[in-house]
Amino acid sequence: MDVSSRPVWTWWRAGQEPDTPPIMKQAQTFSSIHPYYPLGVTIPDYASNSLPVLVLIAGLGSMLGGVLLGTSTLALRFHPKLTKSSLAVFCWFVLCGSLHVFFEGYFVLNHTSVASSQHLFAQLWKEYALSDSRYLTSDPFMLSVESITVFVWGPLCFACAVCIVTDSYLRHPLQIIMCIGHLYGVALYYATSLIETHFSGRSHSRPEFLYFWVYYVGLNLPWAIIPTILLGGSIRTIARKLKILNTIKVGLQGFQARQGPEVVKESRKAR
Amino acid sequence: MDVSSRPVWTWWRAGQEPDTPPIMKQAQTFSSIHPYYPLGVTIPDYASNSLPVLVLIAGLGSMLGGVLLGTSTLALRFHPKLTKSSLAVFCWFVLCGSLHVFFEGYFVLNHTSVASSQHLFAQLWKEYALSDSRYLTSDPFMLSVESITVFVWGPLCFACAVCIVTDSYLRHPLQIIMCIGHLYGVALYYATSLIETHFSGRSHSRPEFLYFWVYYVGLNLPWAIIPTILLGGSIRTIARKLKILNTIKVGLQGFQARQGPEVVKESRKAR
Repeated sequence: MDVSSRPVWTWWRAGQEPDTPPIMKQAQTFSSIHPYYPLGVTIPDYASNSLPVLVLIAGLGSMLGGVLLGTSTLALRFHPKLTKSSLAVFCWFVLCGSLHVFFEGYFVLNHTSVASSQHLFAQLWKEYALSDSRYLTSDPFMLSVESITVFVWGPLCFACAVCIVTDSYLRHPLQIIMCIGHLYGVALYYATSLIETHFSGRSHSRPEFLYFWVYYVGLNLPWAIIPTILLGGSIRTIARKLKILNTIKVGLQGFQARQGPEVVKESRKAR
Repeated sequence: MDVSSRPVWTWWRAGQEPDTPPIMKQAQTFSSIHPYYPLGVTIPDYASNSLPVLVLIAGLGSMLGGVLLGTSTLALRFHPKLTKSSLAVFCWFVLCGSLHVFFEGYFVLNHTSVASSQHLFAQLWKEYALSDSRYLTSDPFMLSVESITVFVWGPLCFACAVCIVTDSYLRHPLQIIMCIGHLYGVALYYATSLIETHFSGRSHSRPEFLYFWVYYVGLNLPWAIIPTILLGGSIRTIARKLKILNTIKVGLQGFQARQGPEVVKESRKAR
């Protein structure tokens, strides 16, 4: 069944394709008929998903929920005075780290077999790829950006989470690094695809509202909004603290300049 | 003349092509015969350079030298106690800002006509493109990364330079942002090209040592090495200062806890 001919409100059945006749399903598996854009793009050994989208989302959601619940409990046991806002930022970095290392790690390690696999993560990638087929074509940019995300940004997200719980001096410098990693990554992710569409007319996303606006734009938007907020906070925090330190330094220098000679005389008399 | 048939030590004549017969030159101009890789890549309206490489390098070098000399003089006049290391970092950011805004800005604004142009910057891009033809094919990744470089990183480099001269509290946060921008950019630049070569066998660089190792690897390497050094320095500086501030805070709290009640009694007696 061509996804475009299906009403948008039945999107949660995208993976199930209940109306597709069995013979058609077989044909899809063997001859790589697929619902991805741009039309004619080669996706070898494509097999349509065996699970409904809601089940896929519930699977990923319960995993992430479990990780967040477990790590938050540990964080509050280690640091009972953790503020609500710090706990929220901690959860953000644990969420990002988990997605980067495990979900995106699965893609980097299995990018050639995702299209034919029925692994939970593979099915999620196939559903998401309706909004960006580059995930099923071993696109060099996607592989590059995802590899760096998995091996650099993923561990760094966990490092940021640890720094929050331990009140480390490295928290804000690492938070700035991670926010720029996210912002630059998402900017390039949007830009490469939109520029290619602009110049060549080739779109990697299906045109339906759900796939372009909800999946492609919407699901990536948090990595533009939240890092912007966190980045601003970290810059302000560092600048404020450096200003306080400088005020203390200038104050001490002034105090020494006024009191210094008398203090020296007093200490000499005392001897 | 096919560049690959030329001894490598004559690289500085790349733009001049003195051995190319006039009829061949004309053919190159009109039928887009070009020396770029991968073989068969389409570069419409290609015209070989009219100036020798040494002249091109001297042109760019004298511009950048003039900018660095002028801005360094201004910086030292504004901040006569600027340390040598801070002046060096200032020069680095002015150099990067100038390259990003003007040289790479030229590419972003003229990417469709660089191949046919004899503008100094166009000839420099055509020479460099022997190591990466994506600069002559309006490659979506190159356009994306270069656009962000021109409109975000360029101005931010100048902002970093200004922060150094004004001893701003924003210096190290901005320096971290800029270093990550450079490091992520250069990592993706190397990775996209090398991954494409690995998976498809298509290389965008000519295979000669000069073009691959000197131009492609060597000319980009400073943007991997210097930001790494500056990033480490900024992180250490921020962490050290935050630690000092925290030590002062803890010391003051301890002093207040010990002296506080007596001080309060004394002040009450005085009344």
